[in-house]
Amino acid sequence: MIKLGLIGFGYWGPNLVRNFSVQKDVLVTAIAEAKLERHVQISKGYPGTLIYTNSSDLINNLEVDAIVVATPVFSHYKLAKEALLAGKHVLLEKPMTSSVDESKELIDIAKKKNLVLMVDHTFLYTGAVQKMKELIDQKQLGKLQYFDSTRINLGLFQPDVNALWDLAPHDISILNYLVNNKPYSVNSTGVSHTNNGIENVAFMTVNYQDDFIAHFNCSWTSPVKVRSTLIGGDSKMLVYNDLEPSEKIRVYDTGYYHSSDEEKNKIMVDYRTGDVFIPKLSTQEALYGVALDFIESILYSKVPLANAEIGLEVVKVLEASQKSIKNKGKEIII
Amino acid sequence: MIKLGLIGFGYWGPNLVRNFSVQKDVLVTAIAEAKLERHVQISKGYPGTLIYTNSSDLINNLEVDAIVVATPVFSHYKLAKEALLAGKHVLLEKPMTSSVDESKELIDIAKKKNLVLMVDHTFLYTGAVQKMKELIDQKQLGKLQYFDSTRINLGLFQPDVNALWDLAPHDISILNYLVNNKPYSVNSTGVSHTNNGIENVAFMTVNYQDDFIAHFNCSWTSPVKVRSTLIGGDSKMLVYNDLEPSEKIRVYDTGYYHSSDEEKNKIMVDYRTGDVFIPKLSTQEALYGVALDFIESILYSKVPLANAEIGLEVVKVLEASQKSIKNKGKEIII
Amino acid sequence: MIKLGLIGFGYWGPNLVRNFSVQKDVLVTAIAEAKLERHVQISKGYPGTLIYTNSSDLINNLEVDAIVVATPVFSHYKLAKEALLAGKHVLLEKPMTSSVDESKELIDIAKKKNLVLMVDHTFLYTGAVQKMKELIDQKQLGKLQYFDSTRINLGLFQPDVNALWDLAPHDISILNYLVNNKPYSVNSTGVSHTNNGIENVAFMTVNYQDDFIAHFNCSWTSPVKVRSTLIGGDSKMLVYNDLEPSEKIRVYDTGYYHSSDEEKNKIMVDYRTGDVFIPKLSTQEALYGVALDFIESILYSKVPLANAEIGLEVVKVLEASQKSIKNKGKEIII
Amino acid sequence: MIKLGLIGFGYWGPNLVRNFSVQKDVLVTAIAEAKLERHVQISKGYPGTLIYTNSSDLINNLEVDAIVVATPVFSHYKLAKEALLAGKHVLLEKPMTSSVDESKELIDIAKKKNLVLMVDHTFLYTGAVQKMKELIDQKQLGKLQYFDSTRINLGLFQPDVNALWDLAPHDISILNYLVNNKPYSVNSTGVSHTNNGIENVAFMTVNYQDDFIAHFNCSWTSPVKVRSTLIGGDSKMLVYNDLEPSEKIRVYDTGYYHSSDEEKNKIMVDYRTGDVFIPKLSTQEALYGVALDFIESILYSKVPLANAEIGLEVVKVLEASQKSIKNKGKEIII
Repeated sequence: MIKLGLIGFGYWGPNLVRNFSVQKDVLVTAIAEAKLERHVQISKGYPGTLIYTNSSDLINNLEVDAIVVATPVFSHYKLAKEALLAGKHVLLEKPMTSSVDESKELIDIAKKKNLVLMVDHTFLYTGAVQKMKELIDQKQLGKLQYFDSTRINLGLFQPDVNALWDLAPHDISILNYLVNNKPYSVNSTGVSHTNNGIENVAFMTVNYQDDFIAHFNCSWTSPVKVRSTLIGGDSKMLVYNDLEPSEKIRVYDTGYYHSSDEEKNKIMVDYRTGDVFIPKLSTQEALYGVALDFIESILYSKVPLANAEIGLEVVKVLEASQKSIKNKGKEIII
Repeated sequence: MIKLGLIGFGYWGPNLVRNFSVQKDVLVTAIAEAKLERHVQISKGYPGTLIYTNSSDLINNLEVDAIVVATPVFSHYKLAKEALLAGKHVLLEKPMTSSVDESKELIDIAKKKNLVLMVDHTFLYTGAVQKMKELIDQKQLGKLQYFDSTRINLGLFQPDVNALWDLAPHDISILNYLVNNKPYSVNSTGVSHTNNGIENVAFMTVNYQDDFIAHFNCSWTSPVKVRSTLIGGDSKMLVYNDLEPSEKIRVYDTGYYHSSDEEKNKIMVDYRTGDVFIPKLSTQEALYGVALDFIESILYSKVPLANAEIGLEVVKVLEASQKSIKNKGKEIII
Repeated sequence: MIKLGLIGFGYWGPNLVRNFSVQKDVLVTAIAEAKLERHVQISKGYPGTLIYTNSSDLINNLEVDAIVVATPVFSHYKLAKEALLAGKHVLLEKPMTSSVDESKELIDIAKKKNLVLMVDHTFLYTGAVQKMKELIDQKQLGKLQYFDSTRINLGLFQPDVNALWDLAPHDISILNYLVNNKPYSVNSTGVSHTNNGIENVAFMTVNYQDDFIAHFNCSWTSPVKVRSTLIGGDSKMLVYNDLEPSEKIRVYDTGYYHSSDEEKNKIMVDYRTGDVFIPKLSTQEALYGVALDFIESILYSKVPLANAEIGLEVVKVLEASQKSIKNKGKEIII
Repeated sequence: MIKLGLIGFGYWGPNLVRNFSVQKDVLVTAIAEAKLERHVQISKGYPGTLIYTNSSDLINNLEVDAIVVATPVFSHYKLAKEALLAGKHVLLEKPMTSSVDESKELIDIAKKKNLVLMVDHTFLYTGAVQKMKELIDQKQLGKLQYFDSTRINLGLFQPDVNALWDLAPHDISILNYLVNNKPYSVNSTGVSHTNNGIENVAFMTVNYQDDFIAHFNCSWTSPVKVRSTLIGGDSKMLVYNDLEPSEKIRVYDTGYYHSSDEEKNKIMVDYRTGDVFIPKLSTQEALYGVALDFIESILYSKVPLANAEIGLEVVKVLEASQKSIKNKGKEIII
């Protein structure tokens, strides 16, 4: 029986507790929350749970085996470090930390202490992403060529991070999970329409050393909500539309063949369009999968899907995008 | 009665002749076409028209007042220059020329000789673009903040220009026409999935000196066809979807207000969503409007909508995008 | 302070209690539920509430002023009658009763005893229906001509009533509420694909004495879910799509004019298509409006929107449809 | 070489000539058209063709082997009879004739004279209908249970036939072609919003002796254009949306199983939803297929797809619908 503590019972914390509570082999033992007015809600919903105001008290509780950190991103590094040093397994909300160096240090500590360090990239556990992973691993799309994501809507403006830090982590983690390829560099542009200089519209290209390319379009100021990703391979292509209630993935048996003739510069292209296939997806709640994976990784010493390396990759891309945006779109090597 | 000559009776030429033929005050007098096998088609469809194999013969025909050039882009500069020097008004297919210098030289000659020089940016004459122009000029959108265009589909790969040169001219001309603002610089990235190095997927950000921004997403290798542009203002926003048969423009009474509190970095944002309005659009064929505007510009010495300055702006942006792409996304000042 | 009792804490009961509990001037005093295993849930969620197993005990509680009946339809008549005779105001789940005679008797009792009798036709309280009512009352659609509703999906088969009794009450109540016109007769057809003879696919035409017509298409065996109604007037027409998250109502400035020439049988028709308008809708929970209307009707002796007359009209149409279906589609006068 | 004559060069006639002209083994020899102003257009487009004003002159031309009749429906019977009696093969526009008796007489004559008699139910030759036929014949849908068609739009009001006669023939012919089952009876309702009494909104149920059912919803006064058919089987279901440019057919691996428990009236239903499949469709012009089938039926003495029996079935259903509508929706046995 793993004894679990949660730090941060704000927007996402209750969802985490709910999904951990229904797992077997887990007992949610303690919750730390700085705001006292939330303590009543905790004691009502989870009567037997210890409630702390101070996170260090929870971390120092010797009974606790594993800690979930659901606080704002700037505090992730400090809390996770403290927890790891106290010998606890750690699940961090996304993005992992505010900088690459912080993420790397946490990974090092976790390795040395042989602890599970995982990041809550929830989307990896959705039926849609699992199905895309399956299709890509089966080579149904062929060699991957591009990943083009649009995640735009009206609001909510974040006060401290731009639209890419806010909206792109989901898509970057999906990209990293699906594509067996390391990003090489990042170009990013954007604009702020408020006087705090934080970009509410931003674009990013992630370049690879072969001819794969990824692109991200993020905005807090679109009149329409779009959650759409195109993934192209040299055999098939797919569209992932997360706003569709059930038909989120459409696989197109579409492509082209090109051949050169003698003159080097002339290419001949043959197009092909075929059937479209909309696979049925698992409807299990993604966060249930996150909780289960964290628990099983601890119990069976396995590497979780949403492991710290993916968390680090996401932070690397975000940090590079910020440098690029501040350098007028210049390529930043990751 | 204006006597008109056409050079190039390929894919687009017949549409031009058809739309000029129905104008009053115009007589399509002569057509030059290098491929002899097309001469039969011309003489059948337009029995009274002179047919030339050599374009210079048409240009030197003293009867001809105005010339339409519908040949591949690399030949535009040479033919237009020759025609202008021969004292003819000129309508060029888009994009205007292969380089900024060529476009500037043509503009200079036309000015000196007091001739109409126009570019066939057909989209400016569509009901959709005219309606957007009307809404923007009436300040219904407020101060414009962004323009975000996606123009993707499967094929047709061009052998000599990349996806931006092929697909973006429509959207760049629309941007220039709608927005009373000069672009400052361009960042562009892309990738080629063929061995000729010509990008089939490309992205471009056009930066302005105030906080307006434009973005373009072009691809020949998308499984789905998208022709969509978002235009955001600080009062309203609109979506222009050119694939909708009649409901191409949706105006959203959507926006947000932001205010700062004392701490400089904190902004308060209020969101607003309201009615959506889908205006009825004129269904007149756009190319008819192009022909009429060219004729009226000659007859009444007026400046056409799709004037050479817009044509030049489009070439400036394209040329800069190419430089940026070859310089790994670096900002190129226009 | 009105003291309220609820009979039936099954699927819909908890929603009713939740929405009545947040009203001022109401106290949910007692809940009757035959299934003992649900008593724990009630006492946990609503600690101060009296819990009865037998509904008569609740009805005979002298403290209770008003009763909400959320039990299966066959029991509505008996429970409502008992409650009215005991001097309680009554809100009944839809459809009101299993037969016209039962509904009429309840209305008579309520009138004699000067009690509020209301039916929970929740849809009347949605932002969408309220907006349509406003548009129609403002004569924006002109003279109404037709109402054409489709409500189809996969499942859930009901064991005792057919697809019309199950699915159409929503749309019939909306029809009755929006249209100031009494139905004259009904034709209905359908088919059962199970061996219990209950139609899982059924169609109904409701005829009026002028040239207004209404049509209903209901099915439990459609692969796609559709919740769509077209309403046509001689000035404008609208489409109500309840599956749209926010753009549920689209008003088309579309119509036609017809005129006869001398030959009586020849008509000349002119078509008109114009702007489309998508009004913003109130997003208040409909059931909150139901609860508020019931309470205010009691307090201020007003007639609720979803009054018993509308409930009766719905039952009249359903009863007639059943007769028609059993008589091979014959017209049944209401 | 079959020598073909066409009677009626109005709206559809030119399409027929165009598609017959490109067939091998056919020569379009003669065209009869009563309106003299159309003769110029014919002689321009088809220089070598004989042009008649009087259809009898064409029918009596001994050179002509086969005749296509593309005139208004009331003249079909007379012209087809005359042509058959003169020994010509006949292709009639849809619907075949104005009455069942007329259609039957034509079939008798054709049989006796061993001539091909075919009706231009063009839709049967579309890629979409061919694909549905293939899926149904392969038993992919299982036992068919229902066919539910909606064909509505704004205009064009017909002066002599109602919305069912105008719009439903396409869907009735598709129904007849796809379903190996004879209709038993028809119920129909409708309303006229003009003073000529011709229904512009009409509904029809076609009943079968087993539990298959078909339903048609036709209107000239809908603000939106819909061309949609649901076909349900006990294994799979499909949606055919003819307005989709390429994804016209969606096959849903969706269904339900029902079983009875001891109490006869109780059924247990299990639902199943699965993948969706959108097959690629042939894009050959349907009318080309019509022309080819007519020619091959003549040359090889085969029965065409759109044979006279299907034409007769369509007329039977239409005639019955008219009787039902005039008898207030009463069931009319076919």
